[in-house]
Amino acid sequence: MPDIRDLTVSIVGLGLIGGSYAKGLRRLGTRRILGVDIDRATLDKAKASGVIDEGFDSPGKAIAESDLVIVGLYPRLAVDFVKANLAGFKPGCVVTDVSGIKARVLGEVMAVIPESIDFVGGHPMAGGESLGYDHSSADIFTGASYLLTPHERNRKESVDLVREMALALGCRKVREVSPEVHDRIIARTSQLPHVVASALIAAAASGSDGMIDCFLGGGLRDTTRIADINGKLWSELLISNSGPLVPCIEDFEEKIRKLRVAIGSGDTEGLEAIFADAMRLREGLYGNAPTLR
Amino acid sequence: MPDIRDLTVSIVGLGLIGGSYAKGLRRLGTRRILGVDIDRATLDKAKASGVIDEGFDSPGKAIAESDLVIVGLYPRLAVDFVKANLAGFKPGCVVTDVSGIKARVLGEVMAVIPESIDFVGGHPMAGGESLGYDHSSADIFTGASYLLTPHERNRKESVDLVREMALALGCRKVREVSPEVHDRIIARTSQLPHVVASALIAAAASGSDGMIDCFLGGGLRDTTRIADINGKLWSELLISNSGPLVPCIEDFEEKIRKLRVAIGSGDTEGLEAIFADAMRLREGLYGNAPTLR
Repeated sequence: MPDIRDLTVSIVGLGLIGGSYAKGLRRLGTRRILGVDIDRATLDKAKASGVIDEGFDSPGKAIAESDLVIVGLYPRLAVDFVKANLAGFKPGCVVTDVSGIKARVLGEVMAVIPESIDFVGGHPMAGGESLGYDHSSADIFTGASYLLTPHERNRKESVDLVREMALALGCRKVREVSPEVHDRIIARTSQLPHVVASALIAAAASGSDGMIDCFLGGGLRDTTRIADINGKLWSELLISNSGPLVPCIEDFEEKIRKLRVAIGSGDTEGLEAIFADAMRLREGLYGNAPTLR
Repeated sequence: MPDIRDLTVSIVGLGLIGGSYAKGLRRLGTRRILGVDIDRATLDKAKASGVIDEGFDSPGKAIAESDLVIVGLYPRLAVDFVKANLAGFKPGCVVTDVSGIKARVLGEVMAVIPESIDFVGGHPMAGGESLGYDHSSADIFTGASYLLTPHERNRKESVDLVREMALALGCRKVREVSPEVHDRIIARTSQLPHVVASALIAAAASGSDGMIDCFLGGGLRDTTRIADINGKLWSELLISNSGPLVPCIEDFEEKIRKLRVAIGSGDTEGLEAIFADAMRLREGLYGNAPTLR
């Protein structure tokens, strides 16, 4: 397996994620990093600071020379990009993506991609508070999980290359799962919380009698932090994953209904049991001793 | 209005909240602070450190001498304590509580309390990660809101005394509301988030295929932080406030349902509009520019 530092790597889309790959790979000492973006100013900034060696506002020349192409675009755009450039990739190259949903991306890409190009589905569980190249950082990968969804057609070296890159960038663990399992779990652990936070802030803020500010504790703030959402990206992610996500929301709705019934009927033991389970589950996930309030 | 420092103050229940009152009032220079608790060891510790002047494991002597009695007990216990000690309070004294629900407490207490005792309902929007005297601190009030639910029978000086104490303890603002308005707003801003967090952690953790740890981002952690709940206290708070809370949960359920339908039907514009509203609402509550993810 080649050393990532010896490869020519193209990064398509120098946003928060793509820019972070560029900065991380540069810090690792990757010899040749090419940036592809529609925004010339971003390319110039990245080149001026030495993060990329060359910037291209069209992908042709960059991907033709690249051993690894990291597509840092939203899912729909990522699929369209790969489809539109099938003939432009360097034979034998590895192409990987960063999409938060995998089944649809893998399905569409693997249906059209030629033998000579190896597409490895990837999802770095990394992000940040704000979007765009200016907020990108080599450190967003530190301690993060990196999910890979290998396909039967993938060459082992290709999957190993992306895995080694993820670990070299500082990820704590790399996990291989099927695209379907990925999308089913991510629906619960990432997509559902975003849906819930958005509904909660709407319900909490409604009819607030103009004095709600005196009633705001830290609980609501934390619980709705991720309601500060990139609506365009998340609408795409959630709708693209509606298959696994909708049953997941229904499961959550059932749990809310049970809580409402227990509260409405004054079922103290039932309610205490639900809260005890919740604390146990959270402790199981985050390992920390429960903090009472 | 008397200066809080010149009064004899009893604090009933030296837990996280009661202990914090004692430490805060001592820091202010209150001359005589009496602690009432069933746990002798806590009383001894508080006295040894000079936080209280005397500790009592039964209230009789303490409340008979006190100009102000702060009842730092759970709502049900607070009501029972006041009822059980009606004859024991010093004539002309002020009694206040710290319950997170107010209508039921005020209703039960005002129905039985004699003219000679002035009960002022209070709710410091302050708390902490952990329970008990050892976690109490004079600083929990700093910057917090303090809600008062005055009753037509209250003397103005009594309400003023509790307000001045709250401000002296470091609270940012003191707001007077009716018990009913208090309970209606607190249901949305504090109780609903706790209900939601508990349901979310249960839904997120279910059937996690043993690899959920690779799928955990910061979003779920923050969104479910308050699922680490004091089940006994919160079961009482929620059930006691089921009147305002249940419709609030139903409103939230309707908003979740709308999101589910938009996701299931691929209604991108509808979904983006909901997320835009959520961001606007959150910005309105917390003033911070939205952070995209």
